Amino acid sequence: MTRFRLLIEYDGGGYVGWQRQDNGPSIQQALEDAVFAFSGERSTPIAAGRTDAGVHALGQVAHLDIARGCSAETLRDAVNFHLKPQPIAVLAATPESPDFHARFSATGRRYLYRIVNRRAPLALARGRAWWLPGALDAEAMHAAAQRLVGRHDFTSFRSSICQAASPVKTLDRLEVVREGEEIRIHAAARSFLHHQVRNMVGSLKLVGDGRWSAGDLAAALAARDRRAAGPTAPPEGLFLVEVRY
Amino acid sequence: MTRFRLLIEYDGGGYVGWQRQDNGPSIQQALEDAVFAFSGERSTPIAAGRTDAGVHALGQVAHLDIARGCSAETLRDAVNFHLKPQPIAVLAATPESPDFHARFSATGRRYLYRIVNRRAPLALARGRAWWLPGALDAEAMHAAAQRLVGRHDFTSFRSSICQAASPVKTLDRLEVVREGEEIRIHAAARSFLHHQVRNMVGSLKLVGDGRWSAGDLAAALAARDRRAAGPTAPPEGLFLVEVRY
Repeated sequence: MTRFRLLIEYDGGGYVGWQRQDNGPSIQQALEDAVFAFSGERSTPIAAGRTDAGVHALGQVAHLDIARGCSAETLRDAVNFHLKPQPIAVLAATPESPDFHARFSATGRRYLYRIVNRRAPLALARGRAWWLPGALDAEAMHAAAQRLVGRHDFTSFRSSICQAASPVKTLDRLEVVREGEEIRIHAAARSFLHHQVRNMVGSLKLVGDGRWSAGDLAAALAARDRRAAGPTAPPEGLFLVEVRY
Repeated sequence: MTRFRLLIEYDGGGYVGWQRQDNGPSIQQALEDAVFAFSGERSTPIAAGRTDAGVHALGQVAHLDIARGCSAETLRDAVNFHLKPQPIAVLAATPESPDFHARFSATGRRYLYRIVNRRAPLALARGRAWWLPGALDAEAMHAAAQRLVGRHDFTSFRSSICQAASPVKTLDRLEVVREGEEIRIHAAARSFLHHQVRNMVGSLKLVGDGRWSAGDLAAALAARDRRAAGPTAPPEGLFLVEVRY
């Protein structure tokens, strides 16, 4: 039995999310089926981040165990072959020690949230960004975002179905950068609560359009109440970029 | 009657190309229908570049005439409303003098061709780039590309159905730049022959994978024979970026 680490890219648009569910296709099931088609073995991949329906990944990491002897390169190519024509690709496979765990061994996660801030609807970025036609002040969003950086109780930005033991997390980085008509929000932490990035982005949008001050954002954090913060930003703008070990 | 200039973005994936054809939906028809839904007028938009099936645009330019009095902003927003849910967006509309012609008044066109050069198949870039898994030498491609820059008879890189009066064109720029696993080819000229960019990219690929030298590319150009050059690169990697006037 060999444990493999997989580095995975996917377009989450047509999926119910990473995790297997009864109501539609999942990334996890697609990978498990591709591994089975190649190896004849049922091995459920475990991911670093269980992305929600519609959320994309540039660098998801998962592990799985295979009894059949094969090289990491063969596994990568065979799984990619059997994943066709789905928009999921194994970028790399590497053998790991049996105690490597994609989720529990991770020491850092990095997300990107893309907003396209222009009057015209999306065409090429459809399903890959949040379209916001009203003017947004990215500098104000960035300044306010710094109030969320650090160790805090993030209850206000946590989904009601979040299963984490504690709402206290350390947010290492939350940067808002405008590049032309696009606003890119970079978030990094050891781990995030369920919906935390999308809920922070939903509140930063209120700062961007002038409805909230940086102080309002800090007050929402201090309230430790989900109802105090803004709405959840849509999934299609979110990308899991990197997992560190 | 007012002539308007439209700046247009689209995902060409589901279309037979810019030009109206009997065998499927076109960008031109989609725009004409959206204008009709708003104004009740049949006005056929004329584009700067008649992109082929599957080719995308970040900055296509077209003109059309409208009798109904309306502001450029109203036209833009109304056409975008009626284009939904198609991946076509009018980024800007501007009134022009009656002698403005999107195609004949253009003084420069700029294209981008995207290659993703990695072992793993495409996931997020599916339909938006040419996937080439074998190693490519982008520096060799760039060096060879300079042999095509300048005023030449481009018969070797011209589609057999090209309707241009002359195969002689001046290529102002052909740059090949690697950015990680992506190779970006930037092409600029006053105008291009039919399939010229895709045919040049198809030959540059032969240089990249070591089958052709820069001299071979120059010899293909000098042959003035389509059979002397490489195959046509697929449409999904091509983007019309900008048209200048």
